[in-house]
Amino acid sequence: MPLTIRLHITPYNTLNLHTNSKTKFTSYSTRIRPKPIYHSNPLIHYVYNKTKMLGFSNPVESSIPSVKSSLIEPDGGAVVDLVLPESERGTKALEAESMPKVRLTKIDVEWVHMISEGWASPLRGFMRENEYLQSLHFNSLRMADGTVVNMSLPIVLAIGDETKGSIGSSKNVALVTPDGDLIGILRRKNSKNVGYKTTAPGLPYFEECITPAGNWLIGGDLEVLKPIKYNDGLDHYRLSPQQLRKEFDRRQADAVFAFQLRNPVHNGHALLMNDTRRRLLEMGYKNPILLLHPLGGFTKADDVPLDVRMEQHSKVLEDGVLDPKTTIVSIFPSPMHYAGPTEVQWHAKARINAGANFYIVGRDPAGMGHPTEMRGLYDPDHGKKVLSMAPGLEKLNILPFRVAAYDTMARKMAFFDPSRSQDFLFISGTKMRTHARNGENPPDGFMCPGGWKVLVQYYESLQVEEAPQKPTVLST
Amino acid sequence: MPLTIRLHITPYNTLNLHTNSKTKFTSYSTRIRPKPIYHSNPLIHYVYNKTKMLGFSNPVESSIPSVKSSLIEPDGGAVVDLVLPESERGTKALEAESMPKVRLTKIDVEWVHMISEGWASPLRGFMRENEYLQSLHFNSLRMADGTVVNMSLPIVLAIGDETKGSIGSSKNVALVTPDGDLIGILRRKNSKNVGYKTTAPGLPYFEECITPAGNWLIGGDLEVLKPIKYNDGLDHYRLSPQQLRKEFDRRQADAVFAFQLRNPVHNGHALLMNDTRRRLLEMGYKNPILLLHPLGGFTKADDVPLDVRMEQHSKVLEDGVLDPKTTIVSIFPSPMHYAGPTEVQWHAKARINAGANFYIVGRDPAGMGHPTEMRGLYDPDHGKKVLSMAPGLEKLNILPFRVAAYDTMARKMAFFDPSRSQDFLFISGTKMRTHARNGENPPDGFMCPGGWKVLVQYYESLQVEEAPQKPTVLST
Repeated sequence: MPLTIRLHITPYNTLNLHTNSKTKFTSYSTRIRPKPIYHSNPLIHYVYNKTKMLGFSNPVESSIPSVKSSLIEPDGGAVVDLVLPESERGTKALEAESMPKVRLTKIDVEWVHMISEGWASPLRGFMRENEYLQSLHFNSLRMADGTVVNMSLPIVLAIGDETKGSIGSSKNVALVTPDGDLIGILRRKNSKNVGYKTTAPGLPYFEECITPAGNWLIGGDLEVLKPIKYNDGLDHYRLSPQQLRKEFDRRQADAVFAFQLRNPVHNGHALLMNDTRRRLLEMGYKNPILLLHPLGGFTKADDVPLDVRMEQHSKVLEDGVLDPKTTIVSIFPSPMHYAGPTEVQWHAKARINAGANFYIVGRDPAGMGHPTEMRGLYDPDHGKKVLSMAPGLEKLNILPFRVAAYDTMARKMAFFDPSRSQDFLFISGTKMRTHARNGENPPDGFMCPGGWKVLVQYYESLQVEEAPQKPTVLST
Repeated sequence: MPLTIRLHITPYNTLNLHTNSKTKFTSYSTRIRPKPIYHSNPLIHYVYNKTKMLGFSNPVESSIPSVKSSLIEPDGGAVVDLVLPESERGTKALEAESMPKVRLTKIDVEWVHMISEGWASPLRGFMRENEYLQSLHFNSLRMADGTVVNMSLPIVLAIGDETKGSIGSSKNVALVTPDGDLIGILRRKNSKNVGYKTTAPGLPYFEECITPAGNWLIGGDLEVLKPIKYNDGLDHYRLSPQQLRKEFDRRQADAVFAFQLRNPVHNGHALLMNDTRRRLLEMGYKNPILLLHPLGGFTKADDVPLDVRMEQHSKVLEDGVLDPKTTIVSIFPSPMHYAGPTEVQWHAKARINAGANFYIVGRDPAGMGHPTEMRGLYDPDHGKKVLSMAPGLEKLNILPFRVAAYDTMARKMAFFDPSRSQDFLFISGTKMRTHARNGENPPDGFMCPGGWKVLVQYYESLQVEEAPQKPTVLST
């Protein structure tokens, strides 16, 4: 399959980035951690220092005129920002104290995070019924002006009968974390929002989120009392869509290509990303920037954990496999549904909001093995096909993956050449994890040594920790 | 809920009806049965005589200039007609003899019928992968010119491993009925079309059609060797979209409002239909025509059978409850999925192709009881909501049902008045069937006596026939 690049002729609307008084980031610079002990991001100081220079911490006070962007227009025309300005937080927190409380799950909090930073722009809260129905049936939302934006995942908040009873006819509810911390307010406009549960045993998001959820869905406008933080040593990697856009602007990117992943980066991925950059340069772009954007929310038990992946990605940049000057590594804080062709649209749509106008899509995106049958849950080609047809994604350039495999003659990862297929070795994610688990080395050139070491150490630590009690492995 | 009429300002494109040489109806007049023994349609002679007069049997030879229509434009601009002209049938049948054969189920034949007559315009055959994926994810298809048509049901042909093996790489396959009669040809352009089975125990269409279906889907362009007929004494009721459009034109309809149903017509329905006509007249239309359009394909075991319903509908017209001069009764030959909000879009879209620009939608359209739980399968309001938001249906005026109930004071069916709710009696389909089954009379004014008698006789015959062996009742 050749790397075909579909170019939609879309004029780049110049866009005044959303820099009103609501968009103060004064608190942000105080949240920058010193260089973390375990995790390193070779870009992070660079990003943050420059961000401050640009008046990022308080754009209103900045003497630099407001940034003009040639980046792709976000869905709905502006990146939604639902984090209350600091000056309002005290009053709102007081107001929230008197409201009925909805206790969120860990995944609900991840969705509050996503919505509040504008990844789901123009969505301004958990979906109401009309948004939910459009998402469910059409994978898109129609705006008041008749335009259509993509919205393939129902982003909903489920509550149980008891919570519903305690809310009664109250229009506003306060949202609290699993630990009881107040984090936001949901202002309802519709009082009736009902959903029926669906169950599909063995599917991670269903088992974790939908099956135990209450029978009711509550939707409304969201206000978030302060930016969502996880305090896991990785918050500095979690750049919001607005922060990413500022950084792309600062680097004067004329093309941004996003790479979504939830696995360690091997040299096949790197080959693909570097080759994409080369092709974008050939197409006439002067400064294509790669957004290496690992998913950071809920994942299934046997996926490699986020902290290990971030460490592995750092090594890939440190080892020079990817060029730090043209790469931004950041966490995409979405939970994972494993919803295949439905979810890949979300992955692409959210990256538009973060400023990416090129999206690399691989084989079986957002897919996984069937929980009970010996096959994938989705046709591996359907993801990229659906993505190329999806309403609201016309302005995004879809770049299908070229298949990379280990070339045993050249002793490196290379694009698969069907004319000498016997020379190529396909190393699946399963095979890679098995190697790492067994402490075996993969063929030379499969992954940079620093990155491989991170994986091997992770699996060693796992065997020590979990020897007496193996985790449930949902797929391999 | 008031009858609100959404008016989309859509210019009525004048349309040359598709009257090329492929659209010959020469064989049709020979298929008109004499007045059937059991079933009567007070309109049928009227329709057919006039149809013939207009050169319907062979438009090319007609001296009357081609009909200009002010009816709503069909999806894709023209009603698809895939029935081969008589002159080509012999050659094509010979060609088909040498092709690999696909044996269809009864429901597959119903879909061949629907596709061949253009109900699914612009679809020209069983869906290929790209159409299937769009239907599944977006409930719509994007045309080459960028416009979107609604397409909510995947109209697909499933085959098993053995059939797939026998087809091999052949591009063309012959379609044969369950009795072995050759009825058409499917010309494939894509060779790979794979679908995975979904199972949902207890849902009629799944149990009847999807669960037993093969693992593969085959798509392509359809050619049908002759119009699909059922020889059940009801074929004269099965007017194609083109025949309906001609008849609406002949009657100089300036509005066509469609009423989809799969139950007997009671006086509440009649009240609604007559009231809709009155309102359309008030809106300035001079000649609104009602298309009373009962679904005639596969239905679940406990729905009232088609022949009984058609007899009941005839009585409703004979008894003067609906006015034959402004009503056309015809069968909508689609199979029923019971897919609620997904399917109601199909029901509406197909009626656009038949010339209807107003569509009446009720409570829980295309819904049914949950197979195992004590609730409906769908939220009863979601159907009309989804319909009002569906891509490709913007040009259709959606008319939500007003709730009619039995007014015990006025002793007739009337629009429910919440200010004196105690006066109203809701007679559900279940209650109606129970009355009829037990030979009890419903309250005076619930249904015209002639129509009620048809139902009672049906249930009497059922008790005699099926006393020793009750049918599985999927819902009540």
